[in-house]
Amino acid sequence: MRFGVLGTGVVGRAIAGRLAALQHDVRMGTRDPGKTRAVAEPDARGNPPFGAWVARHPGVGLATFAEAAAHAEIVVNATNGEVTLDVLHAAGEANLAGKVVIDVANPLDFSSGFPPTLFVKDTDSLAEQIQRAFPAARVVKALNTTNAAVMVDPGALSGANHSIFVCGNDAGAKAEVTALLRRFGWLDIIDLGDLTAARGAEMLLPLWLRLMQSLKTPIFNFRIVR
Amino acid sequence: MRFGVLGTGVVGRAIAGRLAALQHDVRMGTRDPGKTRAVAEPDARGNPPFGAWVARHPGVGLATFAEAAAHAEIVVNATNGEVTLDVLHAAGEANLAGKVVIDVANPLDFSSGFPPTLFVKDTDSLAEQIQRAFPAARVVKALNTTNAAVMVDPGALSGANHSIFVCGNDAGAKAEVTALLRRFGWLDIIDLGDLTAARGAEMLLPLWLRLMQSLKTPIFNFRIVR
Repeated sequence: MRFGVLGTGVVGRAIAGRLAALQHDVRMGTRDPGKTRAVAEPDARGNPPFGAWVARHPGVGLATFAEAAAHAEIVVNATNGEVTLDVLHAAGEANLAGKVVIDVANPLDFSSGFPPTLFVKDTDSLAEQIQRAFPAARVVKALNTTNAAVMVDPGALSGANHSIFVCGNDAGAKAEVTALLRRFGWLDIIDLGDLTAARGAEMLLPLWLRLMQSLKTPIFNFRIVR
Repeated sequence: MRFGVLGTGVVGRAIAGRLAALQHDVRMGTRDPGKTRAVAEPDARGNPPFGAWVARHPGVGLATFAEAAAHAEIVVNATNGEVTLDVLHAAGEANLAGKVVIDVANPLDFSSGFPPTLFVKDTDSLAEQIQRAFPAARVVKALNTTNAAVMVDPGALSGANHSIFVCGNDAGAKAEVTALLRRFGWLDIIDLGDLTAARGAEMLLPLWLRLMQSLKTPIFNFRIVR
């Protein structure tokens, strides 16, 4: 299947790499592919430059946001929440229409430093903002509640004995995303209902950030015990 | 030890009943004890009237908010979040000073129906509001992230193989609450740090409410798998 992964950061790389390993046809989207390839230094968190990463993932293509979205049957929003709507507008409404859009982003506002606050919450969510801006897209919120490494390889943490959530207004889209998550190794996939449930999934982030500090690792996840 | 449990609803009853079973000296606080005892009908959710409950818990006393707090060495705020500050003012600043106050409440706003929104969040929390209003109280946020039945008997759900959080600015108070939670049966008690972590614990509620709907039961909890 053809995927367009928007965003070339840690989350985009994890998802694109995993999709390519599963033999999918993956094109990553960025604002300026030449610039992204030309970065020579690690980023502020010590992640290697994109060129070094993609050299180890030769199956993954790099294109503009619009080209990656046009190429795709399924689009993954792996951008920072603060630029998500701009990026999706750059990708182009026509290139998203009718397609499953997996929204992995969180509406984090780092303008006052760490910990970030949420720039939308409680009565609205980033996922709903996306759905309103692109009504023909089939938006599914998923994977935003855990670390990038856990997202794509849940089995490496406690034998995948933990949970992940999906929500969205299109049952067929949720079924496609659920099948993909099973390929990633997820065993406990909980359907939270329509896209308003993204409010709860995004509002988990403040607790997630405190847990990361208390546990001194980002490699953890929530299991819903029932 | 002497406890004052403020609030006579489902949460207050669960905690007071459990504390009495553990041989503590428990007084529940309410606005008007005579009125609370006189209620003859079940509440809107079908819970029995207080008189019927307390007849099965003869060790639990009933008093005004101020009397219950004055009696207590540890105060439990088991009120609805919307009335919490009013109730604590009725309990009286002097009756809270120097005492551990376990805040179990959530800042739920039902004024627009179900699901509720949060009347404080993200940059502040109900627990912090309490601490600011009563600076001499030793506020610990705990137990607000799960159902009343699970709060006091975690072992009945999956052998207590799930997690609970504490946070607060007073290390000694957190240690006292942690010891109490162990008596309740909690095995995995995670210290989230200072009271600003209550923001994350309270912002878990929207996801909790969606999970209750999806799972069709309130008897579940989060385990932090790491």
